[in-house]
Amino acid sequence: MFPKNCWYVACTPDELTTGPLGRQVCGEKMVFFRNLEGHVKAVEDFCPHRGAPLSLGFVENGNLVCGYHGLAMGGDGKTVSMPGQRVRGFSCNKTFAAVERYGFIWVWPGDQAKADPALIHHLEWAVSDKWAYGGGLYHIQCDYRLMVDNLMDLTHETYVHASSIGQKEIDEVAPVTSVEGDVVTTARHMENIAAPPFWRMALRGNGLADDVPVDRWQICRFTPPSHVLIEVGVAHAGKGGYHAAPEHKAASIVVDFITPETETSIWYFWGMARSFNPQDQALTDSIREGQGTIFSEDLEMLERQQRNLLDNPQRQLLKLNIDAGGVQARKVIDRMLAAEQLAGQAQ
Amino acid sequence: MFPKNCWYVACTPDELTTGPLGRQVCGEKMVFFRNLEGHVKAVEDFCPHRGAPLSLGFVENGNLVCGYHGLAMGGDGKTVSMPGQRVRGFSCNKTFAAVERYGFIWVWPGDQAKADPALIHHLEWAVSDKWAYGGGLYHIQCDYRLMVDNLMDLTHETYVHASSIGQKEIDEVAPVTSVEGDVVTTARHMENIAAPPFWRMALRGNGLADDVPVDRWQICRFTPPSHVLIEVGVAHAGKGGYHAAPEHKAASIVVDFITPETETSIWYFWGMARSFNPQDQALTDSIREGQGTIFSEDLEMLERQQRNLLDNPQRQLLKLNIDAGGVQARKVIDRMLAAEQLAGQAQ
Amino acid sequence: MFPKNCWYVACTPDELTTGPLGRQVCGEKMVFFRNLEGHVKAVEDFCPHRGAPLSLGFVENGNLVCGYHGLAMGGDGKTVSMPGQRVRGFSCNKTFAAVERYGFIWVWPGDQAKADPALIHHLEWAVSDKWAYGGGLYHIQCDYRLMVDNLMDLTHETYVHASSIGQKEIDEVAPVTSVEGDVVTTARHMENIAAPPFWRMALRGNGLADDVPVDRWQICRFTPPSHVLIEVGVAHAGKGGYHAAPEHKAASIVVDFITPETETSIWYFWGMARSFNPQDQALTDSIREGQGTIFSEDLEMLERQQRNLLDNPQRQLLKLNIDAGGVQARKVIDRMLAAEQLAGQAQ
Repeated sequence: MFPKNCWYVACTPDELTTGPLGRQVCGEKMVFFRNLEGHVKAVEDFCPHRGAPLSLGFVENGNLVCGYHGLAMGGDGKTVSMPGQRVRGFSCNKTFAAVERYGFIWVWPGDQAKADPALIHHLEWAVSDKWAYGGGLYHIQCDYRLMVDNLMDLTHETYVHASSIGQKEIDEVAPVTSVEGDVVTTARHMENIAAPPFWRMALRGNGLADDVPVDRWQICRFTPPSHVLIEVGVAHAGKGGYHAAPEHKAASIVVDFITPETETSIWYFWGMARSFNPQDQALTDSIREGQGTIFSEDLEMLERQQRNLLDNPQRQLLKLNIDAGGVQARKVIDRMLAAEQLAGQAQ
Repeated sequence: MFPKNCWYVACTPDELTTGPLGRQVCGEKMVFFRNLEGHVKAVEDFCPHRGAPLSLGFVENGNLVCGYHGLAMGGDGKTVSMPGQRVRGFSCNKTFAAVERYGFIWVWPGDQAKADPALIHHLEWAVSDKWAYGGGLYHIQCDYRLMVDNLMDLTHETYVHASSIGQKEIDEVAPVTSVEGDVVTTARHMENIAAPPFWRMALRGNGLADDVPVDRWQICRFTPPSHVLIEVGVAHAGKGGYHAAPEHKAASIVVDFITPETETSIWYFWGMARSFNPQDQALTDSIREGQGTIFSEDLEMLERQQRNLLDNPQRQLLKLNIDAGGVQARKVIDRMLAAEQLAGQAQ
Repeated sequence: MFPKNCWYVACTPDELTTGPLGRQVCGEKMVFFRNLEGHVKAVEDFCPHRGAPLSLGFVENGNLVCGYHGLAMGGDGKTVSMPGQRVRGFSCNKTFAAVERYGFIWVWPGDQAKADPALIHHLEWAVSDKWAYGGGLYHIQCDYRLMVDNLMDLTHETYVHASSIGQKEIDEVAPVTSVEGDVVTTARHMENIAAPPFWRMALRGNGLADDVPVDRWQICRFTPPSHVLIEVGVAHAGKGGYHAAPEHKAASIVVDFITPETETSIWYFWGMARSFNPQDQALTDSIREGQGTIFSEDLEMLERQQRNLLDNPQRQLLKLNIDAGGVQARKVIDRMLAAEQLAGQAQ
């Protein structure tokens, strides 16, 4: 169960450089390509001629050409031409609103009449040159909500990421969770602790001593449908923590766009935006590499958790204080699902 | 849905050299082996003793010996012997009529009373020393009718085989489709065009200039249950095209025997018979290698098309003029299926 | 269908050296670990917090710590602690009686009230220093009863193990099967024959000539639920066969503990215990290596037999004299299943 009347990240521009891209989003098999103006279009990945996946074809003159028998389709889902054929009567493919913004391609898999690009929330770090961003993509066999849970309860860092960002103090400081409309925030502040390896690297990257006590923070923000942005950072202890001046801290935003593929699989776009030394590409690369390694440690856990849950449908899970972020996020999702169901019945 | 009262190619003699061969044909798991006289026999691939696959065994004195406990079965499905046992009461295995002819082993998976070797149609190229043949076998996860469609609409060459046998002119000349009894023919003649790479190689193989305009033809013939033989070739332009004298052309027959394994998988026996320089084994080898590469380009398309069709059962496919060959072939198949159903009810 | 109120071998101590071990036994997903006293404990492999497999975690202070968020569970299935949480109300995990004995970890997957370690039958070869043991573990996709059949009818050695322990004489001597309570015995004695390669190696290992005629025996004993111990050996011919004095023979016990994982897969613990030259570790190693190779020859046959049986549910198998051991063993198993069903209804 996933909301469909909302924007999800479908892919990144670098995935569209050599040809069309086939990708399933919320159960819909789509193909993405650029038209003559360079706009990204998304249509059903199904050739109306004989059912071949259009994503196996190529783009010509801004149209998607089927790689089997040459049917050419425009971004509006209408067949433009086919060798030796009149195509006026051909059935039209479903289309999906797609918007390229903030370095991502966003898609609206549900009711197309409701697709409003203004609903994509503003991402300052993606447009300001005071920020740098690096990230990647993982394909994971789990319900998207398990990944939301994961990111809204960072005590798992102590166990899953023990050698990089985990530390015992995360466990020991209870998070504070709050809900404002559809935004769920869960925050943790740790004071006067040793920085773990990843953050020592980040401190050095900002020209700061890495062997002194720090204050550390993690502020996870869930926004619908399944995005989690996490303000994270460390400041030299006693300089104001989260509010410390830039020259005393290394701060960044962990970016998590979680896109359901099926009920039990996701496309997970992860990354990190930082506001220190944004022009340092080598630092961007080394952070991305580090983050990629760290985040890959979650994969087996999530996939095995998913299988365990499928195998034990009768078991009730616990909802502890540390789970409050995920629990509240699911309430937001459940409201969206209920609203979509109502809207569907009204039609 | 596949007709079962007909001859399919099950395997080639080289697959039977080292021992028995297990192969599923039309949903029937069979094991093929040679008896003492060297005749190919086919029985159920199931040992009546404990259900082991007989194809894991070996052939001894013309009998098939189970590799588990030594039960020996004759080509008539009867147990001949088993160490320390009286075998008279053992239940008999199903048998399948098998005929070795034209370089292939043919099998009749349906009603054995109707299996008449005279129904295997004559293949002149397989018996005349004026012809040479080379071919191979692919295992593909698709309905056999998708492969029939593929071969009865060669406009796909322009897209799937762009670098070898495809050329834009295939698209531009409409094929002419005709039906005579159960034989469906779809033909295309292109005049005064450049030969694509594969045919330039073939022209050179026949000692002909490869850089002059040619006339090219493709005459696809479907015969039940699922065989497609395609007369193909090029002649120096203006020499009569298909009817040109042998010294002006390079002509051959593409051989396609498509054998259903299950509803969504096939054994695809492909090859090429040619009537020029038949004694030139190196040419045979180089044609087979080229054809093998070209035909492998269809695999992903067919398997992905199959999955797309299974995922979208509600979608209607188009039936264009270029699809007429496949459409007519399916009508023949449907008549066979209806006849088999009637015959089954009458029993 | 497998009896659950009985002891199965779950694992060996070397599988528990680096951390907890997840293993499914009789459909129950369990995790095995050692508590502070070094006793092996088994609990459900499911974290009551969020459903992660506990087997992905680690052992600390004799408790099993979940690798996701640090819940610590004792061997009694109760949550001992979790960072920042009161755990008194946490639901308790199922536990499974586990006993370490004879070099194996035994588990009782069924009604825990009935788990009595005294029901594990004595294994003299495992406790006496007059014996040496070496073995291994295979994971096989077949019903456990197919493996029981395999081991209770050694005529398959002639076919499956032709190059090592098989010989034509096994086929030619009928076995004698007897039942005493729940113990099924099937015995074969071959006189004045040539020793096959494996046994020539064993004769040499006991300092005996390997090129003289021998008497050979195979005495298979099935005990519930699915254990087959086989007394095997050869003696120089005319020295009394099975009863020959130790200096004239090479004798051992083939050990087979077959543990159902699912209805169609098993954990197969195989090994060999011998009473000659028990201190010779090199001989133990070479026997284990030889046996491992020989027993791996059964895998494909069993897995393909299993698939054949699933594909042909309507086919009746034969029950010949050579199958008597397996047939009688299944009768014992059927009685156990019926008793468990009755006991279940009575509750």
